[in-house]
Amino acid sequence: MNNFIFNMPTRVLFGAGQLNNLHEEALPGKKALIATSNGQSTKKNGYLERVEKELDLAGVAHVLFDEIRPNPTKENVMDGAKAAKENGCDFVVALGGGSVMDCSKCIALMVTNPGDIWNYSLSSQGGKKNAMFDAIPIVAITTSAGTGSEVDIAAVISNDETKEKTGIFFPSMFPTLSVVDAELMLSVPPKFTAYQGMDAFFHASESVINKNEHPMGEMFALKAIELIAKYLPVAYKDGSNLEARENMALANTLAGYYMLCTSAHTIEHVMGSYHEDLVHGAGLIMTSHAYYDFFAEKQAAEEPMMKMAKAMGVENPTAGKDFIKALDELIAAVGCADLKMSDAGITEEEIQLYPQRVHEVLGGDITADPLPLSDADYLEIYQKSFR
Amino acid sequence: MNNFIFNMPTRVLFGAGQLNNLHEEALPGKKALIATSNGQSTKKNGYLERVEKELDLAGVAHVLFDEIRPNPTKENVMDGAKAAKENGCDFVVALGGGSVMDCSKCIALMVTNPGDIWNYSLSSQGGKKNAMFDAIPIVAITTSAGTGSEVDIAAVISNDETKEKTGIFFPSMFPTLSVVDAELMLSVPPKFTAYQGMDAFFHASESVINKNEHPMGEMFALKAIELIAKYLPVAYKDGSNLEARENMALANTLAGYYMLCTSAHTIEHVMGSYHEDLVHGAGLIMTSHAYYDFFAEKQAAEEPMMKMAKAMGVENPTAGKDFIKALDELIAAVGCADLKMSDAGITEEEIQLYPQRVHEVLGGDITADPLPLSDADYLEIYQKSFR
Repeated sequence: MNNFIFNMPTRVLFGAGQLNNLHEEALPGKKALIATSNGQSTKKNGYLERVEKELDLAGVAHVLFDEIRPNPTKENVMDGAKAAKENGCDFVVALGGGSVMDCSKCIALMVTNPGDIWNYSLSSQGGKKNAMFDAIPIVAITTSAGTGSEVDIAAVISNDETKEKTGIFFPSMFPTLSVVDAELMLSVPPKFTAYQGMDAFFHASESVINKNEHPMGEMFALKAIELIAKYLPVAYKDGSNLEARENMALANTLAGYYMLCTSAHTIEHVMGSYHEDLVHGAGLIMTSHAYYDFFAEKQAAEEPMMKMAKAMGVENPTAGKDFIKALDELIAAVGCADLKMSDAGITEEEIQLYPQRVHEVLGGDITADPLPLSDADYLEIYQKSFR
Repeated sequence: MNNFIFNMPTRVLFGAGQLNNLHEEALPGKKALIATSNGQSTKKNGYLERVEKELDLAGVAHVLFDEIRPNPTKENVMDGAKAAKENGCDFVVALGGGSVMDCSKCIALMVTNPGDIWNYSLSSQGGKKNAMFDAIPIVAITTSAGTGSEVDIAAVISNDETKEKTGIFFPSMFPTLSVVDAELMLSVPPKFTAYQGMDAFFHASESVINKNEHPMGEMFALKAIELIAKYLPVAYKDGSNLEARENMALANTLAGYYMLCTSAHTIEHVMGSYHEDLVHGAGLIMTSHAYYDFFAEKQAAEEPMMKMAKAMGVENPTAGKDFIKALDELIAAVGCADLKMSDAGITEEEIQLYPQRVHEVLGGDITADPLPLSDADYLEIYQKSFR
């Protein structure tokens, strides 16, 4: 059994309607920067207004920062931190999906730390500095079931200049408090429900095949896989099904607790670093068959793959290939069988550049795969995935 | 799906040998009260010396308080708090099993709060006061796989005068840091391995049948049940089997995270309040068949009981009775089939007094059973259990 540390300090209010209880919690400050996306959905659906009301009820002042784009940038981070400082905010309320929560964590970090967020990136062009000060506290209110960002310390930020997309993480970036209320997820369109749900799936499946897996992580991951296989197709077909949304919300949070990502995540982050409009979950789906099948062909992760197949409802799995089949079926069931890399603007020529970049762009642990992958292996996975 | 709050703030170092890493952790103070039992085992086995060495390496001063008895008393609590205050200790290191950890939590509470620990008990004779101040920080080093006390906020304390044995709990009583190192459990004798392991089992089984169950709690509890059914008989027969000890340690910690106890725990705490030498796990075993069978007979918890039976290895459970059978087999496999209430000094006459006391002595949630139990029902359970 691998040793492990259980460290899940975020207090999570889980369940339909829990947003309405936010004002009863001990909030970690007097004035909040409400950080949200540059889109309309949180406003149109009334979520922003509800959050403002909860803060009012709690006697907490608030300022709105609504400039976070999908695949948030270092500019988003620095603009948010500036807004927080100028307005004297002492905590951040992140209202949105993974992009918003990730950006908000970095905003919270940059309120207290000097310089530019890229100074703290471990990427090739990053400054690799340690944070001098703790982030101001973060309250995360997730509106999607995808990234698990509401319960982890990581943030994925893009740098348009260096074409890097990388993870930034410090212990103080754990949210203090999170609200996981599936009622806020009812409005996610089917396509994004699928992408986000599969992102959560891959957080879990990468944890199960991970060399550093331990029984606690496996428990969380296999439960997440079970719930996603059962409920994601339902939530995809009928977004108003609250039971399916709740179970997807739970699966996502479970998958967030021990996110032991392998190079599968790095493979996607490289694609995302070239194509900012590529949705992370979609990129993961495009390369997943080739990635997992690489190990199934070599029988390098038979036991974990059979456990995953079983969690997905395969009665008596006998080989890793059973997982590959179940994965393909799940991807088809959520309308993603026809996703093409070429539709995202990726070309066969460009793919040649990717393997080298896998070493430069962080996003998962490229040493954690069941077998070590060479650049030629990465190229094979990209090429087999290309359509 | 029942809503729930996930709040597990304790950082846990889990795994064989983790005690050796304690000095690398950020310890929560400058001077520790090392609280341990009045027995010899932590000294004889060298655990105390190892803990002292870890604190020395971390540059933390320490004072020993080794007066905690099994079923710790309010005097133990007050004596420990006095020792901590007189010596200027700013945190407590609990080294031992459930009794030691429970007592240590209350010691930590009474370092900062006025009066007597019973002022803060919710029992019939308790003062039912709210704590005015947070406990000083607690580091728990568990030497048994039984109570889950290393990851929860509760403590069970006995009052010899009032013959009460009750739970005391405040949010600040969560340990800051816990070490769950199965190497420290290798020396637990078979009988106590069984009692402690079954205590963990019942924390889990009471959570699964609990009216307030939720999917997160169920996940933890069913995994704990699976591991205990598989590994407790192994650890019982061969205490030196580290794999079995590690899996039991994991099961116990998992069962501690969401301890949704029913009146089964109260039923035992009443017995324990009359007989201080009765080991908690043994008392739970003595009454377990009659308690669970009460609901199986009435088909009041068929689905949760079938889930538990499945987790215990029953291939295709069809009724709650399958769980009862698996429970009986597990109890027999760990040498506890012949436990007798009369051997603990309990008499048939005394049992008559117990149902009324169930309402006075807290220990589990008597409103959380699958069906509400009357005093006549409690008497029936005690009488059917009596041998």
